[in-house]
Amino acid sequence: MTYCLAVRLDHALVFASDTRTNAGVDYITYYSKMHVFAPAPGRLFVILSAGNLATTQQILDWLRRDLEQGTEENLNSVRYLFEAAQYVGRVNRRVQETHADALSRSGVNGEATLILGGQVGEEPHGLYMIYPQGNYIATSAATPFLQIGESKYGKPVLDRLLRSDLSMEDAARLALVSLEATARSNITVGPPFEIGLYRSGDYDLTRRVRYDFDSPYYAGLQNAWQEGLTTVFRGLPKFEWEE
Amino acid sequence: MTYCLAVRLDHALVFASDTRTNAGVDYITYYSKMHVFAPAPGRLFVILSAGNLATTQQILDWLRRDLEQGTEENLNSVRYLFEAAQYVGRVNRRVQETHADALSRSGVNGEATLILGGQVGEEPHGLYMIYPQGNYIATSAATPFLQIGESKYGKPVLDRLLRSDLSMEDAARLALVSLEATARSNITVGPPFEIGLYRSGDYDLTRRVRYDFDSPYYAGLQNAWQEGLTTVFRGLPKFEWEE
Repeated sequence: MTYCLAVRLDHALVFASDTRTNAGVDYITYYSKMHVFAPAPGRLFVILSAGNLATTQQILDWLRRDLEQGTEENLNSVRYLFEAAQYVGRVNRRVQETHADALSRSGVNGEATLILGGQVGEEPHGLYMIYPQGNYIATSAATPFLQIGESKYGKPVLDRLLRSDLSMEDAARLALVSLEATARSNITVGPPFEIGLYRSGDYDLTRRVRYDFDSPYYAGLQNAWQEGLTTVFRGLPKFEWEE
Repeated sequence: MTYCLAVRLDHALVFASDTRTNAGVDYITYYSKMHVFAPAPGRLFVILSAGNLATTQQILDWLRRDLEQGTEENLNSVRYLFEAAQYVGRVNRRVQETHADALSRSGVNGEATLILGGQVGEEPHGLYMIYPQGNYIATSAATPFLQIGESKYGKPVLDRLLRSDLSMEDAARLALVSLEATARSNITVGPPFEIGLYRSGDYDLTRRVRYDFDSPYYAGLQNAWQEGLTTVFRGLPKFEWEE
């Protein structure tokens, strides 16, 4: 399983992902799910991936090849971020079609769901979720985040605390809390966690960090959250009959 | 949708449920999902229900009829709580079979999943989840809670804070927090919320309370949790580059 999350802030984007992939519980491996394309000055694309690993790897290979071969449509030719979402959606569908018959005969699901974020020239920074069918949705002011994979465990804390006017560091901390909650409730999601921060106008990841279970920062954050919640829980109002 | 939760503490049980049922988003109604049977001194059974509403209502009707008619197997005849779980599981399966053909022709899922908790005589208090297939699982020391329905959003806070040595009031507060998190992330789960507290040896619900959105206690709890989490979030450690 996978859990990836991306946030569109007023002046930045935050990307977060786990790195665990599994084909059954006895074959667990680690792959980065955060893929960065900065194909030319003034354009940046970050792709987070969930679903079939073979499909996502082939999508990335095709995107790179299209760039190198200068095909009619590629990450350098698109003029808007939504055109990149359309293009990546089409590549996703084409890759799936390549193997659809063989996979369906084996009962394997070849679908991949992607998050694409970034910025093209003077266009505002943006964030899209690309479905296996190739269509996409963007964030909105009221829903400034997108999730793919095992999304439910990590959502309440986002619904509660995430706002688009947070600093990118605050949003990154919240993303780590959301990842940690998910990893705690579902063993197929786990560290190392990757966090990418993008300040609008930078056209490359402003920062990229990676935390394992025992990374001092991650361990400290985890402790602070756990202890903080324990304290809040102990201070909750008593029922009327307890007084 | 539904979210029900029950906790087995060292000396008590806590039951919690929402009351929202829906057949599509344009037909939302309210039904209690917490059903109490105290058929004779020294025996108590509490059933929480999720799934097809017609199935759960018919199960309850059959349990009541079996009690009244004094059939060979009923909630008065069982000698152990697990026998009650077996019996209720069989009734669940029989009710589903009654309508299985007609429902499957209409593409409707007639399944129901139940939580059964209570105490029979000198046996310890206990908690079981009864699957649509009629089989059951109990809690353990390491996993002192059971959930049915929309269970994921409300699980992280339980994984983090629930322990079997909590007081029943503390566990009830945590159950309300878990319900609130779920209602916030999924609009088909919502108040009024019902909470039942059972102290081992009481053989009837020790307390039963019901909270709506605007109930003073629930509103206060919700505020305290939200404000507490906001404070903890603001106090999380800074990344090394922020200092």
